[in-house]
This record gives sequence, structure tokens and C-alpha cells, in this order.
Amino acid sequence: MTDFFELLKTRRSIRQFQDKEVSLETIQEIIEECCLAPSAANRQPWKFIVIQNQDFIKQISDESKKNILAYIEQNPGSPSKQYEMAMRNPDFNVFYNAPSLVFIIGPKDAANLYVDCTLAACYFMFCASARGLGTCWVGLGTSLLDPELLDRMGVPEDHKIVAPIILGHPKGIPGIPERMKPDIIKIIP
Amino acid sequence: MTDFFELLKTRRSIRQFQDKEVSLETIQEIIEECCLAPSAANRQPWKFIVIQNQDFIKQISDESKKNILAYIEQNPGSPSKQYEMAMRNPDFNVFYNAPSLVFIIGPKDAANLYVDCTLAACYFMFCASARGLGTCWVGLGTSLLDPELLDRMGVPEDHKIVAPIILGHPKGIPGIPERMKPDIIKIIP
Repeated sequence: MTDFFELLKTRRSIRQFQDKEVSLETIQEIIEECCLAPSAANRQPWKFIVIQNQDFIKQISDESKKNILAYIEQNPGSPSKQYEMAMRNPDFNVFYNAPSLVFIIGPKDAANLYVDCTLAACYFMFCASARGLGTCWVGLGTSLLDPELLDRMGVPEDHKIVAPIILGHPKGIPGIPERMKPDIIKIIP
Repeated sequence: MTDFFELLKTRRSIRQFQDKEVSLETIQEIIEECCLAPSAANRQPWKFIVIQNQDFIKQISDESKKNILAYIEQNPGSPSKQYEMAMRNPDFNVFYNAPSLVFIIGPKDAANLYVDCTLAACYFMFCASARGLGTCWVGLGTSLLDPELLDRMGVPEDHKIVAPIILGHPKGIPGIPERMKPDIIKIIP
């Protein structure tokens, strides 16, 4: 038994991982479960790419860092500026050296692509956490432009990456980042 | 105890409700819990509107139907065409006569508005389901244009509706709409 309300309160974004693989079988199970997410008109536009090769994950991280730095140079006033130092650090891996990286992608022209793939991603993160695994949605991991790299990753040209999720055995469970009081702007009884 | 894996398998989109209110206190608890969702840079751009007035929900449904019909007339080849008959039926309520309707909205200029609000919506639906309540994300409920109605709803001009979610006590739990086999397009070991 995994109590949902316990899971709700203890699930965290994890950025530090044990030096221990997650089996492909487990990842496939989690992917199968996350396809239970609802989607607009039950269209299920989500597709998955699983990467467990550390060298390749590093290459994707490097491509992401290059593009984010170029963006910061062109937009020095953007909030991405806060990432500049990390992006210039050759040792920093945007995927936090996680043993596994899963991309949830879908057709660019799917009507509710972001919503549907985010629902699947949310399910993915709960299903991983319910197994004691840790995940983090790495937004920086969507900044990929190199067509040759995208091709090696298996991203079709007419598809878009929605959710890059890292996955591994957590080194520890960090405290909860502070939440604001819920902003209920109107109640109409 | 609410077993997560049981919840995962039994949560459904619910479109038939008992004639029984959900207390505002329960809705506020669910909203508080759904704010435990992760968000980009922990920015939590989500805000909430709770509507429990049946006449007002009907007015919002009517505005939605009017706009969807206008869209279908201008775009007769669009997939929305499938909704035309329902939209022309004066008895059809896009919110399925649910006792409660919650809108998750956020600032139009928030960088990850759709992803962040969808994560909160996913949490909301799990938290409701874990209490034996039923929800359905009603995409048609975003088709609202009338500034006067939006003002009465409490939607600020610079905000956008991401998730209209109906909530109530389910009349029954329908079977699972068929899922496709997960499409893992590439595994890089």
C-alpha cells in the first residue's frame, strides 16, 4: 500500500541521485501507468523517449546549455539570466547526473499537446514517487535545436518536447519549497 | 488509507453527478492540497475561482456554447464540428450539471502557465478522487469571451483560464476509455 495523501505530501523534485540504475522494466511500467492520465477527447498524444546512456545525456545537457547561453546573450534582461553561471560551468549537468532521462513528446499540431503531455508527466512523477524513485521536470531540457542531436534522440521533426523528466533513486528527500497561501480569487456560492 | 495504485486505476472523468453539494470547506482543502504541485522555479502562478451557483454555471455554459458554435460556423472543417449538435441543444450543459465548478487560471504572461496550472489541475483531480469525488476537465469551458461575464466570474483581464474542472459526487464510476499501447519511440540504453 502506498497512501495517496502521504505520497502527496512527500513527493519532491529530486536533483541528487544515488549511483544506481533504474531498470528499463520499471521505467516501462511507469510509462504504462502514466498513460492512464486523461487527455482531451481521449486522444493520448503522448510519446516517450527513454535515455539511460550517461554520455548521451551529457551531450543533450551541453546542447541545452549552449542554447540557453545564446538566448541569455540575446536577451540579457530575461529571467534566464539567473542560470548564466551554471550554464558556463562545464561540470554542471542540467539533468543533475540522473541515471535516466525520459522525454514526453508529441505532435506539434496536436490541439492540447501541452495540457495532455503535462497530465501524463504528472502521473509519471507520482508513479515514480510511489515506488520510492525521484523525479524532476527539467524545463531547461527543452532547449534543444541541433537537428542531428534531435534525430539521434528519436524526436521526429514534426514533434515537440513537452516534458524532460529525470529519474533515479534519490540520495535524500529535501524539505518542501515554500508554498504560498492558495489564491482563491472568487467564490460564487 | 487511500492506496495510490488503486486510485490511479480507478480515477475516471465523471460526467454524471448525484444531486448533492460538495462543501466549500472540502473544495478549499482540495485547492490547498493541489498547490503542492511542482511549478517552474516554484513560481506557483495558479489562482482559483469556485462557482457553486447553478444559474451562474448555466450562464457560463451558454456563453461557451455560443462561442463554440460561432467558431464552428467560421471553421466548418474543424474537429469542433463534432460538438455542433450538443451546442445547439438548449438542454445541454457543457458542465454536465455538476454542483461545483472550479477554474484554475493564471497571468497570461506567466512563462509556464499551461504546464504549471495543468500540474495543479492534475493534483486537484487526484485529491478529489481520493475523497470519492468525481471531476472532469471540461476543455469547452475555456471558450469564454464576454468581458462582462468574465468580470462577474472574477477573471482579471490579464489572466487566462487554463483548467475548468467540474466537481461533484459521482452517480457511478464508468469503465475506462480505451488506452493505446504506450508509444515508446526510442530507448537509448
